[in-house]
Amino acid sequence: MDKRKVILDCDPGHDDAVNILLAGKSPVLDLIGITVVAGNQTLEKTTRNALNVCQYLGLDVPVYQGCGQPMIIEKRNSPEIHGETGLDGPTFDPLTKEKETKHAVNYLTETIMASDGEITLVPTGPLTNIGMAMRMEPAIIPKIKEIVLMGGSYQLGNVSPAAEFNILADADAAHVVFSSGVPIVMVGLDVTRKVLCYPSVVERMRAIDTRAAHLFADMMEFFNKTQKEVFGWEGGPLHDPVTCAYLIDPSVLEVKEMYTEIDHGFYGPSYGRTNCDYFGMSGKTPNTKVAVDIDVEKFWDIIEAGIRNYS
Amino acid sequence: MDKRKVILDCDPGHDDAVNILLAGKSPVLDLIGITVVAGNQTLEKTTRNALNVCQYLGLDVPVYQGCGQPMIIEKRNSPEIHGETGLDGPTFDPLTKEKETKHAVNYLTETIMASDGEITLVPTGPLTNIGMAMRMEPAIIPKIKEIVLMGGSYQLGNVSPAAEFNILADADAAHVVFSSGVPIVMVGLDVTRKVLCYPSVVERMRAIDTRAAHLFADMMEFFNKTQKEVFGWEGGPLHDPVTCAYLIDPSVLEVKEMYTEIDHGFYGPSYGRTNCDYFGMSGKTPNTKVAVDIDVEKFWDIIEAGIRNYS
Amino acid sequence: MDKRKVILDCDPGHDDAVNILLAGKSPVLDLIGITVVAGNQTLEKTTRNALNVCQYLGLDVPVYQGCGQPMIIEKRNSPEIHGETGLDGPTFDPLTKEKETKHAVNYLTETIMASDGEITLVPTGPLTNIGMAMRMEPAIIPKIKEIVLMGGSYQLGNVSPAAEFNILADADAAHVVFSSGVPIVMVGLDVTRKVLCYPSVVERMRAIDTRAAHLFADMMEFFNKTQKEVFGWEGGPLHDPVTCAYLIDPSVLEVKEMYTEIDHGFYGPSYGRTNCDYFGMSGKTPNTKVAVDIDVEKFWDIIEAGIRNYS
Amino acid sequence: MDKRKVILDCDPGHDDAVNILLAGKSPVLDLIGITVVAGNQTLEKTTRNALNVCQYLGLDVPVYQGCGQPMIIEKRNSPEIHGETGLDGPTFDPLTKEKETKHAVNYLTETIMASDGEITLVPTGPLTNIGMAMRMEPAIIPKIKEIVLMGGSYQLGNVSPAAEFNILADADAAHVVFSSGVPIVMVGLDVTRKVLCYPSVVERMRAIDTRAAHLFADMMEFFNKTQKEVFGWEGGPLHDPVTCAYLIDPSVLEVKEMYTEIDHGFYGPSYGRTNCDYFGMSGKTPNTKVAVDIDVEKFWDIIEAGIRNYS
Repeated sequence: MDKRKVILDCDPGHDDAVNILLAGKSPVLDLIGITVVAGNQTLEKTTRNALNVCQYLGLDVPVYQGCGQPMIIEKRNSPEIHGETGLDGPTFDPLTKEKETKHAVNYLTETIMASDGEITLVPTGPLTNIGMAMRMEPAIIPKIKEIVLMGGSYQLGNVSPAAEFNILADADAAHVVFSSGVPIVMVGLDVTRKVLCYPSVVERMRAIDTRAAHLFADMMEFFNKTQKEVFGWEGGPLHDPVTCAYLIDPSVLEVKEMYTEIDHGFYGPSYGRTNCDYFGMSGKTPNTKVAVDIDVEKFWDIIEAGIRNYS
Repeated sequence: MDKRKVILDCDPGHDDAVNILLAGKSPVLDLIGITVVAGNQTLEKTTRNALNVCQYLGLDVPVYQGCGQPMIIEKRNSPEIHGETGLDGPTFDPLTKEKETKHAVNYLTETIMASDGEITLVPTGPLTNIGMAMRMEPAIIPKIKEIVLMGGSYQLGNVSPAAEFNILADADAAHVVFSSGVPIVMVGLDVTRKVLCYPSVVERMRAIDTRAAHLFADMMEFFNKTQKEVFGWEGGPLHDPVTCAYLIDPSVLEVKEMYTEIDHGFYGPSYGRTNCDYFGMSGKTPNTKVAVDIDVEKFWDIIEAGIRNYS
Repeated sequence: MDKRKVILDCDPGHDDAVNILLAGKSPVLDLIGITVVAGNQTLEKTTRNALNVCQYLGLDVPVYQGCGQPMIIEKRNSPEIHGETGLDGPTFDPLTKEKETKHAVNYLTETIMASDGEITLVPTGPLTNIGMAMRMEPAIIPKIKEIVLMGGSYQLGNVSPAAEFNILADADAAHVVFSSGVPIVMVGLDVTRKVLCYPSVVERMRAIDTRAAHLFADMMEFFNKTQKEVFGWEGGPLHDPVTCAYLIDPSVLEVKEMYTEIDHGFYGPSYGRTNCDYFGMSGKTPNTKVAVDIDVEKFWDIIEAGIRNYS
Repeated sequence: MDKRKVILDCDPGHDDAVNILLAGKSPVLDLIGITVVAGNQTLEKTTRNALNVCQYLGLDVPVYQGCGQPMIIEKRNSPEIHGETGLDGPTFDPLTKEKETKHAVNYLTETIMASDGEITLVPTGPLTNIGMAMRMEPAIIPKIKEIVLMGGSYQLGNVSPAAEFNILADADAAHVVFSSGVPIVMVGLDVTRKVLCYPSVVERMRAIDTRAAHLFADMMEFFNKTQKEVFGWEGGPLHDPVTCAYLIDPSVLEVKEMYTEIDHGFYGPSYGRTNCDYFGMSGKTPNTKVAVDIDVEKFWDIIEAGIRNYS
């Protein structure tokens, strides 16, 4: 079987880093590039983190720096969750891996235009890079195979009662993406809240006792600490890796087709909400496969296998 | 024990009608007045329906007609759910009971101002009458004991992915009410969707074989028919009576204190949403007890007891 | 000729007070009532000011207190323009005139319903009372002869670049009124900015040397003082009396029919703007006669005549 | 004196074409590049028109194609004003001049980054290209000397009572540009409405009897025809060339410093309005020199001189 070509578009971020780990040596995924966006931390920091993770894991994948702020609105980060570096916890060797000189948006447009429609995008941060690429070169839209993204919620948000961070952080870009016509799988808080990385999970993975295992465990220990401080939870939700877990084994998720519309522009209390038409009331054609349930055991098995790929 | 004084503010509507039935002869509630608002149908029809239900059940309670359209926006009804009369199903005798001449908004302001703070309002339609009363006479606000309302949802809406009908129908009035400072119990779709009036429930109640039982059963048969046509469901959710069921026996609901903010004014895709701060992320003081779970068996027992009060 | 029946709906306010003076003894106007709203100052203060002006001028007209806050949004006053009392400047005798007990909104609905369609409303404050009355009793709408209001601007605002104070203060109520279908004459800043009450005007009126003349002059001296402090202008615009001046002699204004739509709800930078379709681009039927020019000399002559009516 | 380096960012469009003509051989301007955006017509047509105008006039300036739709919202054109081609009227020879392969947004970022801060941008269409460039590479912002744009109005709009076409067509991009901190000269409808290209002006220019003169006259005859059909005006306003006229001789305009805020996002009736703080009420530091008056005679002299430069 051909490996599925993916580009990770991310803002590492602890859970983004695990997603890179998961995709990096997967026997079914071909990680052709990583594009970075501001989100969990500033663009400089998320780029550095992506490079650090690749170098640590020995992944020879090019890293492209993209947009440092949302398409229209002011930017916001979340240092309270991911620490000052955006990836507090592990210790990295001096960084020698360098980012590519090409802008991530140009990398996306050129790579997709040169493809035969076989590339899947996996965004796990604000959708700025992809929204910008779609506006720079609309001809990429029909050539994107699928977008499997972490973001949104059809029920409860996390930054506000209505909205999840990645969508809220650039709701305009999210509107561009969701209204583009590209097939979307939306992995939202509805399922990612169920994969809580309890200490027992951290121990299970650390016991694998490889570099990759320790990276996972070091990151998750820090992540759990802030989750406990901010939310009072024992185990933080491992949001982003649900995307690649789904690409590796789609049976990990139950999805339901819905029409999804972004609350953008209207800067009211629901700003950034992914309004997913769960009951099909609008009569509009579904544009999103929304994840509605997850097989938690299977997910952790996929994570463990992903770590063991580095043995 | 003193009975608790309640005013039902409603737009009958099948489930409003059941709520009148439930409150009308409750040994713990003192139904001192009914105020009517447009919503499920036009004001003329909802007023006529309230009078018909009272006359049929022999309830000597005054009925006041209120506002026929929302405070600011255009009005909307839902004939597809409640039929042309707004209460299709049962057959009523010629109507002799008359509405009061006083406007519902004036009745509310005068009655509350003359009270000692012991009156509970039970709105099961758009909040127009109460919002208008709060603006006509702000001094009523500290004298309202509690507002126990059917409306909203902290998860999924019914008219749109974001919003429930009663709130959407006059989101501005909802904003006035939710931001007023009056203690609010919000009985939303999150729990009312769980009390589905399956044919077995209709049969159980009809078997009581009194006038009240037949009214209930005749109404619910029609209601279930439209729920099936519109949503494909076997049993329709009996939304409104959860309010009086809670007043009769608070243990029927599990509630959680949350800060709730209405999406009003910004006429975007989330218009009419009750943004309930489930996780307490905003740091704002809760202004609402939001129903998060319901004891379904206990609810139907309360309904049955309510019907048997007419025997 | 029959006098034209008018109700002044105001928030005195210096220029509102001059409008009461102008209407009070006009040979062509029959001032049947004054309704008061919060705006320039709190409801208590604007009511007191209306009573003081009537008592001072010996006007036997009933004064009804209305709404103390906007229909939906939070209230705002402008003490920087009208002083702590809302009518700083003149000294009044102890107040013996009392407000009526009926609420202004009920007075409006009852009086208009009892009329034969001959009553003109003259609002010179936020449109809350009239908006509320239209929602309490929509049947008044076809019975209102005309609404001649001070508010809005089709060019530049005064509180924001987009909006004028009276409309901004309750844009929702303004929407209710402008979309009601009642014939409206909008006297906006476009013309009222041209009637600047320079010191020479104050002197001209004071020279009439009657109680009414001194009231005018005392008020305008204070008003000019704050206009100079806030805006740096030598003479303040005498906004509100342009309404009654127009009713006394329509030739004082040039008006142009336009479709006018209020920016309400969307709480953006243009909130409260009266979007007047000057060029008829929308194709929508005009709902407003918008004042586009004023005969300044004629205006001051009307004011002088109004003062001399008290001689 | 060094010529001032300018890049025209345009959507020709008749008045854009005149602006190219005006800049093309100006002794004080150095037209280093033309970037094209969708607006008056589709991107394909506006690009073709820019190339046609350059070829016709013998201008050896590179033309870069940019964005074909706004940053976030749906696109709108105005074929009713500029005809099916977007530049109906003149007849062009077969087109041999080719557009550059580089995307206009990349041309802008690379050229500005390579400059020493001496480049002035002259947008006369929707601000999409420049907004996109500012988000792709924020480091260009302090290197842009000035933006002299045609767009907006502090008084009356043309597409809606609130808004002018160029701003309305991509209000989000306009927000990005106006809030960027780059010095802006806003040439809005307030002044461009005053330079009406009456038949006498067309005759005056045609009498110069050169290729450039005939291009001007052929275009303006068509433009006047649609202006008369759509608005009923004898002469259409020659909006865009006021920008280069100002760069050629700043004394042609009277400007006033104002803080300007774009109504974007809130999709209300004032959407796309440039809220210019004419009276300085906001206390915010001015970010725009807004044109408030124009010397009409001097403007036509500049146009005539611009045509004669081709003799």
